[in-house]
Amino acid sequence: MGSAAATPPPARKPTQDELKRVAAHRAAEFVEPGMTLGLGTGSTAAHALDRLGDLLRAGALPGVTGVPTSLKTEAHAARVGIPLLPLGGHGGPGKIHLSIDGADEVDPDLNLVKGRGGSLLREKMIEGAGDRFVVIVDESKLVPRLGCTGAIPVEVVPFGAHHTLGLIRKVFDGLAGFRARLRTGEDRSGSEAPFVTDNGNYIVEMFFDDGIRGDLRDISDRLLRITGVVEHGMFLGMATTVIVANKDGTVEVINKK
Amino acid sequence: MGSAAATPPPARKPTQDELKRVAAHRAAEFVEPGMTLGLGTGSTAAHALDRLGDLLRAGALPGVTGVPTSLKTEAHAARVGIPLLPLGGHGGPGKIHLSIDGADEVDPDLNLVKGRGGSLLREKMIEGAGDRFVVIVDESKLVPRLGCTGAIPVEVVPFGAHHTLGLIRKVFDGLAGFRARLRTGEDRSGSEAPFVTDNGNYIVEMFFDDGIRGDLRDISDRLLRITGVVEHGMFLGMATTVIVANKDGTVEVINKK
Repeated sequence: MGSAAATPPPARKPTQDELKRVAAHRAAEFVEPGMTLGLGTGSTAAHALDRLGDLLRAGALPGVTGVPTSLKTEAHAARVGIPLLPLGGHGGPGKIHLSIDGADEVDPDLNLVKGRGGSLLREKMIEGAGDRFVVIVDESKLVPRLGCTGAIPVEVVPFGAHHTLGLIRKVFDGLAGFRARLRTGEDRSGSEAPFVTDNGNYIVEMFFDDGIRGDLRDISDRLLRITGVVEHGMFLGMATTVIVANKDGTVEVINKK
Repeated sequence: MGSAAATPPPARKPTQDELKRVAAHRAAEFVEPGMTLGLGTGSTAAHALDRLGDLLRAGALPGVTGVPTSLKTEAHAARVGIPLLPLGGHGGPGKIHLSIDGADEVDPDLNLVKGRGGSLLREKMIEGAGDRFVVIVDESKLVPRLGCTGAIPVEVVPFGAHHTLGLIRKVFDGLAGFRARLRTGEDRSGSEAPFVTDNGNYIVEMFFDDGIRGDLRDISDRLLRITGVVEHGMFLGMATTVIVANKDGTVEVINKK
């Protein structure tokens, strides 16, 4: 764990949404005029967008532009007045200085699980492209090991998805408590169908009884070597700062060692 | 290089298409009744489909079924009467016994470049799933190093493709003669547009002046670790047999050591 700084608790106990907002506001303090920002997706990141919009309108952040990680974030950012750039291509940013996003889990080495909401590839691409990545979470997201509180998602090509699922299972062959399944949801007609990502792919959900153990970079390589696997939701070594809103209302800022 | 066996040359010099056909017929000799086959795509694989269709109709291969690597192969196989299964899912094969396909290049260790025609992911998935993989080529495809005679393709997610292209260039940073570009073609209106694969992805083409050097598995991992890279066209350690039709009409069968 990196260095930590605590702020004094507020007078009354805040709600979880207020906690997210406090952490998001603290993250916005990392933003400087002229920066190009990677803009995350989700309920915590949404608070950061609102805050950045306020600061931009107040004239406090001239020249700041954003690269959205989802269509939802793109719409939200436009609504609050954040100028946007696409990632790469003509008119794209030369460089992303800082990204701000939430996470599903944070381990003691600041590795993350992201993508339980179904978006991971665009976030990983944009947040991995930046110089700094500030993650905002409430303390319920701090875990001893990734995969302790829910699924680790893996984005897979639709063609042969059941075959790919079988190969993912083989990576953890014999591991007690390991389960994997294709994520489903309701399609337009209300029938159960595979969940489809922004990129037209499917999601395999991996579950571990007590979190994933072992060399995470090696496990990552073994997953990525499977033909049909596009990306996974373990964000290893990417976060440079994690801002944690505690239940008692204090905020901790943990920097990567 | 593995063990080699040569057949005597025919009376006159065969055309390249005849050479492909001769090699394809030799590959069909590896097929046994009851086998589930991975069926490749391309002009050489097409000869194998024709031959398998003939053998099936003659009753020589009862119980043989195929898993096609493309829509084109699916249509061809159906036309010549090969019963088909999808890959994975309900009704999919339990196991693929043998795959037959062409290749763009074959190196001395039987590593391949495939996918210059634009299809690599489905082929890699199916051919990697089988017990044996028989590759059929004419001798012009034998190279000292992969990437000697043309592009090594990399399938990438459309979102951020130019950014992904930049990261692929970084893998070979400073390597003299290395170039990479997004493959383009004409869209429906006749305008130049990114080439789109069967899976809705784009292709980055990597060019090397004198072929790719170094530890191919390490290079593979570095490419696959790039968020946005889905798969690449180096098929490493997958071919178990390569059948080579020589210009003089002889056929060589090279088995993996």
